[in-house]
Amino acid sequence: MKVLIVGGVAGGAGAATRLRRQSEDAQIILFEKGEYISYANCGLPYYIGGIIKEKEKLIVTQPELLRSRFRIDVRTKSEVVKIDREKKTVTVQNHADGTVYEESYDKLILSPGAVPKRPNLPGIDSEGIFTLRTVPDTYQIDAYIKEKNAKTAVVVGAGFIGVEMAENLKERGLDVTIVEFLDQAIASLDPEMAAILHRHMRENGIKLLFGTGVQGFEKGDGLKVKLTGDREIPADVVILSIGVAPDSRLAKEAGLELGVGGSIQVDDTFATSDPDIFAVGDAISVRQIVTGDKTLIPLAGPANKQGRLAGDNVLGQRITKDSGVQGSAVLKVFDMTAASTGLNEKQLKAQKVPYQKTYVHPSSHAGYYPGSSQLSMKLLFAPDGKILGAQAVGFDGVEKRIDVLATALRLGGTVYDLEKLELCYAPPYSSAKDPVNMLGFTAANILRGDVKVFHFDEVDSLDREKVTLLDVRTPDEMKMGTLDGAAGIPLDSLRERMSELPKNKPVYAFCQVGLRGYLAARILVQNGYDVYNLSGGYKTYITAKG
Amino acid sequence: MKVLIVGGVAGGAGAATRLRRQSEDAQIILFEKGEYISYANCGLPYYIGGIIKEKEKLIVTQPELLRSRFRIDVRTKSEVVKIDREKKTVTVQNHADGTVYEESYDKLILSPGAVPKRPNLPGIDSEGIFTLRTVPDTYQIDAYIKEKNAKTAVVVGAGFIGVEMAENLKERGLDVTIVEFLDQAIASLDPEMAAILHRHMRENGIKLLFGTGVQGFEKGDGLKVKLTGDREIPADVVILSIGVAPDSRLAKEAGLELGVGGSIQVDDTFATSDPDIFAVGDAISVRQIVTGDKTLIPLAGPANKQGRLAGDNVLGQRITKDSGVQGSAVLKVFDMTAASTGLNEKQLKAQKVPYQKTYVHPSSHAGYYPGSSQLSMKLLFAPDGKILGAQAVGFDGVEKRIDVLATALRLGGTVYDLEKLELCYAPPYSSAKDPVNMLGFTAANILRGDVKVFHFDEVDSLDREKVTLLDVRTPDEMKMGTLDGAAGIPLDSLRERMSELPKNKPVYAFCQVGLRGYLAARILVQNGYDVYNLSGGYKTYITAKG
Ligand SMILES: Cc1cc2nc3c(=O)[nH]c(=O)nc-3n(C[C@H](O)[C@H](O)[C@H](O)COP(=O)(O)OP(=O)(O)OC[C@H]3O[C@@H](n4cnc5c(N)ncnc54)[C@H](O)[C@@H]3O)c2cc1C
Ligand SMILES: Cc1cc2nc3c(=O)[nH]c(=O)nc-3n(C[C@H](O)[C@H](O)[C@H](O)COP(=O)(O)OP(=O)(O)OC[C@H]3O[C@@H](n4cnc5c(N)ncnc54)[C@H](O)[C@@H]3O)c2cc1C
Ligand SMILES: CC(C)(COP(=O)(O)OP(=O)(O)OC[C@H]1O[C@@H](n2cnc3c(N)ncnc32)[C@H](O)[C@@H]1OP(=O)(O)O)[C@@H](O)C(=O)NCCC(=O)NCCS
Ligand SMILES: CC(C)(COP(=O)(O)OP(=O)(O)OC[C@H]1O[C@@H](n2cnc3c(N)ncnc32)[C@H](O)[C@@H]1OP(=O)(O)O)[C@@H](O)C(=O)NCCC(=O)NCCS
Repeated sequence: MKVLIVGGVAGGAGAATRLRRQSEDAQIILFEKGEYISYANCGLPYYIGGIIKEKEKLIVTQPELLRSRFRIDVRTKSEVVKIDREKKTVTVQNHADGTVYEESYDKLILSPGAVPKRPNLPGIDSEGIFTLRTVPDTYQIDAYIKEKNAKTAVVVGAGFIGVEMAENLKERGLDVTIVEFLDQAIASLDPEMAAILHRHMRENGIKLLFGTGVQGFEKGDGLKVKLTGDREIPADVVILSIGVAPDSRLAKEAGLELGVGGSIQVDDTFATSDPDIFAVGDAISVRQIVTGDKTLIPLAGPANKQGRLAGDNVLGQRITKDSGVQGSAVLKVFDMTAASTGLNEKQLKAQKVPYQKTYVHPSSHAGYYPGSSQLSMKLLFAPDGKILGAQAVGFDGVEKRIDVLATALRLGGTVYDLEKLELCYAPPYSSAKDPVNMLGFTAANILRGDVKVFHFDEVDSLDREKVTLLDVRTPDEMKMGTLDGAAGIPLDSLRERMSELPKNKPVYAFCQVGLRGYLAARILVQNGYDVYNLSGGYKTYITAKG
Repeated sequence: MKVLIVGGVAGGAGAATRLRRQSEDAQIILFEKGEYISYANCGLPYYIGGIIKEKEKLIVTQPELLRSRFRIDVRTKSEVVKIDREKKTVTVQNHADGTVYEESYDKLILSPGAVPKRPNLPGIDSEGIFTLRTVPDTYQIDAYIKEKNAKTAVVVGAGFIGVEMAENLKERGLDVTIVEFLDQAIASLDPEMAAILHRHMRENGIKLLFGTGVQGFEKGDGLKVKLTGDREIPADVVILSIGVAPDSRLAKEAGLELGVGGSIQVDDTFATSDPDIFAVGDAISVRQIVTGDKTLIPLAGPANKQGRLAGDNVLGQRITKDSGVQGSAVLKVFDMTAASTGLNEKQLKAQKVPYQKTYVHPSSHAGYYPGSSQLSMKLLFAPDGKILGAQAVGFDGVEKRIDVLATALRLGGTVYDLEKLELCYAPPYSSAKDPVNMLGFTAANILRGDVKVFHFDEVDSLDREKVTLLDVRTPDEMKMGTLDGAAGIPLDSLRERMSELPKNKPVYAFCQVGLRGYLAARILVQNGYDVYNLSGGYKTYITAKG
């Protein structure tokens, strides 16, 4: 069997090696239009920041190894420009010598990735405006910064790559501004979680301009970035990171069915609408495991695993079906980590999935052991308890908790399962009740009806006449700031002073993180009050406010 | 309802607070024979090591808070010495004023914990021999070391507490020897995994005497610890940490049913054989979720969660059944972390549970991003793929992977689920194929029959006449050490040189960690050879050899 593969990185190289392991007989040709294969896309920002210092480190597997060890006919600088499905051939343009030739196939695997979006704005083609996708992109940015002795950078778009680039440019000593159209960075987080990152980025000297569009660029003695609202900011270098679009040009021209966002449509074996053509990676749309809907999740983990499965399936002997993607992602920003899995609240709302939510702010490990720090966590769950998504931000132990939650989500777990999870505990690592257990407890308490909650985004619109807003923290804590119109009865005197609270109005109780508010709610409910506790407490509210 | 609770720490205090949240009406009296309640047992070794510096930090919740916030009648220095089940009373001895009184109950919750084993050896009561369980134990050890200006310590028993104490005594500047009857430390790990820790402990100056029993102590100008084989070693201070026994004295005297190891027998609601008496924590036996057998798992996570459930169940309104314990545990030893969940190989063998196993040694995060280190991981799984247990040792990201595996195990996951897990990936945190995925891939490859494996413990007994032992690493690697009698053909020339291998004998291939051996196996199998790959490679073999 002769298998051609288009694209030599996560999905493509991964399919090629797996295919070889499954079949010594297959003839495998890997086409890569660029100079490099099997490179570490995800490491590129860190090369620019000087964290990764050696160029070799950006290449995970050398072409020579794919040739010698896997007998893969690796052809770099070789762009597949056309697929002829009738003849079962592709047309290849050799960028090294300019030749063009055809190559026949029995099966074809497409893993062309995605292309950074480049909006059609005035001045967009000026020198000094870059996108980052490949190794040569990286070298170009690096060289340009050196050559021009760049001092200021504007990053357009505050997604993962934008934020990573902002951090790395800052680490390199540039003055960095991020311009973002939305009101927040990292869209996979909900705004109140992203707010924690915003603060950390600002503390680390990154300027953030949210709700701001770029209208064009002007080249003079350096670049000027023209913003909505008639502002402009100077920049020696601009990084465009406003997202990627699936690279489906070839597939489209070959008449293959396309899906969401112009992606290549595949079934759950990664076959396209042509059974002899498979596709994986950033170019395809995938099934979101929470909703079952097709969506775009351009991440390296899924791309690699899809490549592995396509490498099996293309042989036709053993078919492994894909189980979908959940979108687990993590980001380092200076000393902080943010991670998430599944759907966020914005997505659940947009897709009209019924959900509830809970916030906790536990310690990363036992507070009595040195070095712990506070985590902020959010869990989204269905009325029947099913985990729908989770987000966490903090300095330590963040991705561990999201990995655990991602595992529970993948296995169809519920908040009741989270209550039971038995995770590793010793003081340097966690608490006897792990933060993930705490999410489970608080969520299950809501579903079992032990406590009713209200949320930070309802606080401002609560009619202070119709409800009693009750701060159960200490007077000292209240002095540092409390909610408008809140009465104060510290938890520890609540039983004595309860009669101060009118019984004919619901009580909206709150504390710093939600625990004392919950205890207050349990006391009051049993005394005949209608009570709501502010999930995540004043901390979630005030963080969300920015 | 009047509920008495015996024991004021993990299980007891946790039951009391939960019970109060569920019922404002209940009368709750908490008896603790010692001076302190709600203390951080798990933090005690770190106080001795000077890592935790403030005494206050060892108390998680002050009795005053349990009184004011939870209206719990906390009685310290109050030992429950007898239960009268007929009369539904307990007899309490007040150690502060010497009085003895009775207290009646509707329901009784026992969480008396466990007692450190203290073998009946000559000289065992000499000054300077300690066990560590409570806050006063800790202060005593601390004071003794200061007072005697102790320079040498012998720790008897290399379980979790023994190893933590050895580390902390070493950090404090003492010369430390661990004496252990078994051939390894940390019995929850299998020996080849524990071997990694042994090396690290030795590198950090801890002396390890395995296979060595203590026969007695002699007090002279300091202590002498008398060992099997007529040896003796001097010690200024001795820590006995040879395990704990469930404290079931009260329960036994009250005629309650006992179970494994003299533990208090409970059903899955934590009721004892007397429906008005519940028991939780280290004193009870629990259902191991892998086998369903009753066993002892004295850990703080389970004790806390059991307390929480007992606090519910005792009220009789809403009954929550326990789902068993899996025994997830983690240990810090100097710069290393070791963690495990589920059953180990020794236990599976002893209980005749059919299993297979796989080893991997992946990088803690992407190798191209600075600071990664090698993990050593072992997965035990059933013939149908069910996860039975997992172990990991390394410098970074160890407990994260075991937490993920613990979650998968708890939710009934299989190795095929591990292949699919979508965990957080960015270069500082993991690889696109996470180490847990790698465990899944290698395990599933075995079960699907893509590769047959052999293990480090079969190597020495392989008949070199009847098999071809094949090292597929490079000649340079072979020079650093290889298996006795191994032929060498580097993987990358295997296809060319295959004919050197006799076809009438099985090939036992190996490499450094197992990956190249697997690739070799795939090549050879497809060329008609009968092949086995050494799981975990030469690294697992040589580590196991010590
Ligand atoms: C800067 C950066 C940071 C990232 N960080 C992370 C991260 O931390 N975590 C994470 O999970 N993901 C991250 N990603 C995303 C991840 O790299 C991608 O999801 C993954 O590489 C997708 O794999 P793929 O095979 O689909 O595409 P790619 O890896 O992009 O490979 C596609 C290849 O196909 C080639 N190609 C395209 N068309 C043709 C053609 N017609 N002929 C021949 N060759 C062709 C391209 O040149 C390209 O090399 C990051 C991406 C970037 C750019
Ligand atoms: C040094 C050390 C380190 C540890 N490290 C870890 C770790 O890192 N991770 C982990 O998971 N676990 C660890 N543990 C184990 C953990 O502390 C226990 O599993 C947990 O505390 C058990 O809770 P419990 O309520 O059953 O018993 P305990 O916490 O021991 O509480 C029992 C209490 O009951 C009191 N009591 C007993 N009998 C009576 C009576 N008749 N009347 C009144 N009071 C009575 C005792 O004085 C004691 O205070 C460690 C234990 C020790 C000693
Ligand atoms: C490296 C690359 C070529 C894939 O190579 P690969 O050989 O398929 O994958 P890995 O090196 O990750 O190894 C995984 C394989 O080794 C096996 N393996 C790993 N450790 C093993 C061990 N100790 N023993 C036995 N087998 C082992 C796994 O089972 C798996 O094989 P399988 O798929 O047949 O089950 C491809 O992933 C790539 O190009 N990556 C770099 C680009 C990239 O991913 N960029 C985006 C992220 S930065
Ligand atoms: C501390 C101790 C008294 C238990 O107190 P507790 O109030 O039950 O438990 P925690 O403080 O851990 O808080 C957990 C409770 O707060 C709730 N909670 C936690 N964070 C919350 C938040 N942000 N919002 C709302 N509720 C929250 C949880 O849901 C849980 O309540 P529930 O059981 O009713 O569901 C007991 O665990 C103890 O004595 N521990 C120290 C001893 C010990 O464990 N030693 C061994 C290990 S070192």
